[in-house]
Amino acid sequence: MTLRTIDWQPDHAPALIPGQVVMIDQTQLPATLAYLRTRDLQEIWTAIRTLQVRGAPAIGIAAAMGLVAAVQDHPGDTPAVNDALCQAADYLATSRPTAVNLFWALDRMKAVARGGAALPPRAFKNRLAGEAIRIRDEDARMCRAIGRHGAALLKDGDAILTHCNAGSLATAEYGTALAPVYVAREQGRAIRVYVDETRPLLQGARLTAWELSQAGVEVILICDNMAAYILKTTPIAAVFIGADRIAANGDTANKIGSYGLAVLAHAHRIPFYVLAPSSTFDLALANGDGIPIEERPAEEITRIQGQTVAPAGVRTRSPAFDVTPHALISGIVCEHGILRPPYEPALRNAAGKALTT
Amino acid sequence: MTLRTIDWQPDHAPALIPGQVVMIDQTQLPATLAYLRTRDLQEIWTAIRTLQVRGAPAIGIAAAMGLVAAVQDHPGDTPAVNDALCQAADYLATSRPTAVNLFWALDRMKAVARGGAALPPRAFKNRLAGEAIRIRDEDARMCRAIGRHGAALLKDGDAILTHCNAGSLATAEYGTALAPVYVAREQGRAIRVYVDETRPLLQGARLTAWELSQAGVEVILICDNMAAYILKTTPIAAVFIGADRIAANGDTANKIGSYGLAVLAHAHRIPFYVLAPSSTFDLALANGDGIPIEERPAEEITRIQGQTVAPAGVRTRSPAFDVTPHALISGIVCEHGILRPPYEPALRNAAGKALTT
Repeated sequence: MTLRTIDWQPDHAPALIPGQVVMIDQTQLPATLAYLRTRDLQEIWTAIRTLQVRGAPAIGIAAAMGLVAAVQDHPGDTPAVNDALCQAADYLATSRPTAVNLFWALDRMKAVARGGAALPPRAFKNRLAGEAIRIRDEDARMCRAIGRHGAALLKDGDAILTHCNAGSLATAEYGTALAPVYVAREQGRAIRVYVDETRPLLQGARLTAWELSQAGVEVILICDNMAAYILKTTPIAAVFIGADRIAANGDTANKIGSYGLAVLAHAHRIPFYVLAPSSTFDLALANGDGIPIEERPAEEITRIQGQTVAPAGVRTRSPAFDVTPHALISGIVCEHGILRPPYEPALRNAAGKALTT
Repeated sequence: MTLRTIDWQPDHAPALIPGQVVMIDQTQLPATLAYLRTRDLQEIWTAIRTLQVRGAPAIGIAAAMGLVAAVQDHPGDTPAVNDALCQAADYLATSRPTAVNLFWALDRMKAVARGGAALPPRAFKNRLAGEAIRIRDEDARMCRAIGRHGAALLKDGDAILTHCNAGSLATAEYGTALAPVYVAREQGRAIRVYVDETRPLLQGARLTAWELSQAGVEVILICDNMAAYILKTTPIAAVFIGADRIAANGDTANKIGSYGLAVLAHAHRIPFYVLAPSSTFDLALANGDGIPIEERPAEEITRIQGQTVAPAGVRTRSPAFDVTPHALISGIVCEHGILRPPYEPALRNAAGKALTT
């Protein structure tokens, strides 16, 4: 596991700043493994908006590092740098609406900035850089913990089904939904993974199938509409998905198609697990009804890699996410363990814990 | 409605033969409306195999007309022509396994040939040509009847959701699942149609969205995995699908994804109708377990219109069809009316009726 989806690269290590954000440009996978290197706020915003970096945890890390890049060369005093930081944070918050980690990471950076208001500018910027890297490292540790808890659900030879990409490419390291597969592999157990291609942007085909194949995991790629047939005709131990936001009652926003998959898993009596770090919890929301659902442009459906596949001007609906009601979720695997219903007390309890691993 | 998906074109009308099969090359839609004109058996086989012509009723018509084309220039006597016909029929039967109309049409042509064994060669070939055209005309009449029965289920302003293409392009004229939309329109009612794009071959995006747009029907194109979200958040009066084969108990084979859609419709208490002519009934099969499911090549998933969308060599599953159990089907709309459970007596009764409209 050496994939580094997103990282901060100092110009003169060990000094943290100046430096740049380095990320895999996921729009070019699987054809090309190319890296985007930038210290420009607008480019970071565009990278999040256009899904060059995607996956709720990775978006949070990109935003935090983007803030550092945006203010590192600011010539002003600490209050001026802090103003620039807040402005940059407001701007990055407009890039995508659904993943709560984006807002969580921006808020965390702003809180650290408030705590460092008395520092001289250079130390202030250094503290911000340190915090962004800490968000990344914590994410890596959380994913490993999610992997350990989730791996306990799987035995050698099991097959799971997953949707979209909640793997290395969505996070700092092991991923969330795929972390148990990687951990099981380290523990000597082979897990097969059925992967929904995940239209419209094909994150399953382009990203999940790619990263699992790279890691030597057995992948079987299917179209989204084949999931029901596979769940009916093939022994599938569980469905594992990630999350973009989890409300207090356990309702979970994730990539469009997740909700339908949950209904299908339930109809076939197959356990359906959400795997996500506690940074994905949004306990201020009572339930999933309050989660804003991003609507994406028609072209993402009507054109595939530059090829037109539908009549010109046809109307579309293109919700990027849907909400799976908690009643369809067998368990929520976070860094603190496997949470079971009723979710509200379990989520509140887990959110209050420090990561000790 | 002037689309002629498939037709027989005589060289010197009103004489039926010699002539050629003319069909819309559906692999080129929606970019290009091109026609394939052929009198070659191998080309007919390839057209069916590669989905230049597709949709269960259209495949049956193509096969019947293909047999006429194959034997029309045969220099031998009637028994020799009949031998050639049977050989050609055996060959066309290998083109695709699931749609029962293919075998139904071939068997019907062979039966007519047996009945004409005493005719001189030219009259024998003429009778075959007449029968192929009759299959086409009957299909058109059956589709109109299906449309009338199905339209009674819809009121002005309703929205339906459909999957794949069971419209004009799949049949001789009005289609099956889409026939009620066309009939309702003639009757002055506007029906909106949510269309699943239908991966891997995008028949919904390429064909259904195209033919409905051409006819001035309001289309909203979605990805297959968005159906659950739409069924949950949008008032949908019913799901309408076609069928490739219907077993005696009502179990229905149709395009992959139909079964999942039936589970989702059931979960959202939305009526789920199968619309198909009685030529789609396979009453020799007790239930859907006996229906062979065609597995298509990996490239149909991993490449879209020539663009690679998945890592090289990735394994796939690609069932072209699935079976929807009769318990999830609210009604089967055939040319004789709307059949309701229990399906076995209703299907047997309908299969015995002549089309009187």
